[in-house]
Amino acid sequence: MTPFDDAVALTLQPDGSWLGRTSPAYANMVGPFGGMTAAVLLNAAVSHRERAGEPLALTVNFAAPVADGSFSVRARIARNNRSTQHWSLELVQGDEIVATGTSVFAVRRETWSALEAKMPSGLPRPADLPRMPLHGRPPWVHRYDMRFVHGAMPAFDEAEQHDSSSCLWIRDDPPRPLDFLSLAAICDNFFPRVFVRRRKRSPVGTVSMTIYFHASEAVLAEQANRFVLGVARALNFRNGFFDQSAEIWGDGGELFASTHQVVYYRD
Amino acid sequence: MTPFDDAVALTLQPDGSWLGRTSPAYANMVGPFGGMTAAVLLNAAVSHRERAGEPLALTVNFAAPVADGSFSVRARIARNNRSTQHWSLELVQGDEIVATGTSVFAVRRETWSALEAKMPSGLPRPADLPRMPLHGRPPWVHRYDMRFVHGAMPAFDEAEQHDSSSCLWIRDDPPRPLDFLSLAAICDNFFPRVFVRRRKRSPVGTVSMTIYFHASEAVLAEQANRFVLGVARALNFRNGFFDQSAEIWGDGGELFASTHQVVYYRD
Repeated sequence: MTPFDDAVALTLQPDGSWLGRTSPAYANMVGPFGGMTAAVLLNAAVSHRERAGEPLALTVNFAAPVADGSFSVRARIARNNRSTQHWSLELVQGDEIVATGTSVFAVRRETWSALEAKMPSGLPRPADLPRMPLHGRPPWVHRYDMRFVHGAMPAFDEAEQHDSSSCLWIRDDPPRPLDFLSLAAICDNFFPRVFVRRRKRSPVGTVSMTIYFHASEAVLAEQANRFVLGVARALNFRNGFFDQSAEIWGDGGELFASTHQVVYYRD
Repeated sequence: MTPFDDAVALTLQPDGSWLGRTSPAYANMVGPFGGMTAAVLLNAAVSHRERAGEPLALTVNFAAPVADGSFSVRARIARNNRSTQHWSLELVQGDEIVATGTSVFAVRRETWSALEAKMPSGLPRPADLPRMPLHGRPPWVHRYDMRFVHGAMPAFDEAEQHDSSSCLWIRDDPPRPLDFLSLAAICDNFFPRVFVRRRKRSPVGTVSMTIYFHASEAVLAEQANRFVLGVARALNFRNGFFDQSAEIWGDGGELFASTHQVVYYRD
């Protein structure tokens, strides 16, 4: 039982909702790391006895700060189809909805396939890169071994850059075999693009995140607990909100997930 | 009143839900064009008397085929915040949910801003390109004037390509001033990437689509009814599902929307 498994754990309640609890190990500056909220919402569907297929798409909307302590997750099947299952998700504290989401699960069949995107090549291996220093970082950052190729968390020297991209190797700490839940959390691993671009401190918060899962459970299992590669960039910073696009690659060159988010920032 | 306004129109019902009706003008091969379903769901929130702010994010999950005829839309505010408003959306026919969605509205304030993505440059203007032929296309395609720079709807000669990208100018037909609703519909304008890549006919259907709106209502209004530029590509085609990423640009070089979808295909 790793800290990740502990943080994502849910208990089925008599009314069909799931009871969970924020984990100090995945705390952010305020409340839990958003990737953990995404993983917890997904886990409510993954763990449901009527679940069919594997995760294909997940959208999580961060409606309000998640308070430290217990929460419940409502996961409802909106529609079952031959090849897809549609979920509506809510994370609730007290009487208030703090996150909403939807997820699509799918039964995949072998078809013609083609990977059009290219994994960045010629990169240093994780063993040849230093681990990101953890001093002064919130607890959740300690739960990941991040090794930056470029675009690391910057010094806040306010030297504005032309490019907000990052490329890094990522692994759970302690290492843990990759699955859909940890992959969902890793999709929110990237530091805010506005920090990389502006090198200026400002309040930020993810508003909405979408993940498309490209790999099967079996492919993720082959990755085991080795480092995955994350690549992230922004298209636009505009009047209080910016977007981020990212891909998570297996070390064998398979695309595991593509993910997008829109993030609030204050000037 | 254009055919678009007619198709997107909703009537408030006594129970707070919205009544709409599919429009033959926006019919696809089976049921309505998915972009119109997205626009209708967004319209239920846009038209709501408690709506605050402008659309920032929209996710639509196509849970089942929409049947021709009437439908109702349930739009519920899950949470109001100082700067964002969170919506849960459902499109219902009979007792069945046929589409689910979430949307975030936001009050934007002027901040430091930077456009990091580059609009493709050196392109021919719409007036210098032929309109896409409409013969044999479903009704919705007739509602758009599409002028391809590259990656047009291919002949199905099964000559597989290495690249699934498309670039085209798009305008409503008849022309109509751009707003969030028509922009949402345009985000689903792109023909399936698997057709461009494989040049092979196969059953396809969008499963989930997310849109991030980068422009304000005022910026969209300045675009009026002139052509916008659409650019789309896929990262991965894998065992029955592929993704699509696209951007919609104003003719003045502003990014209006970035959008992503995951699409079912059969071999």
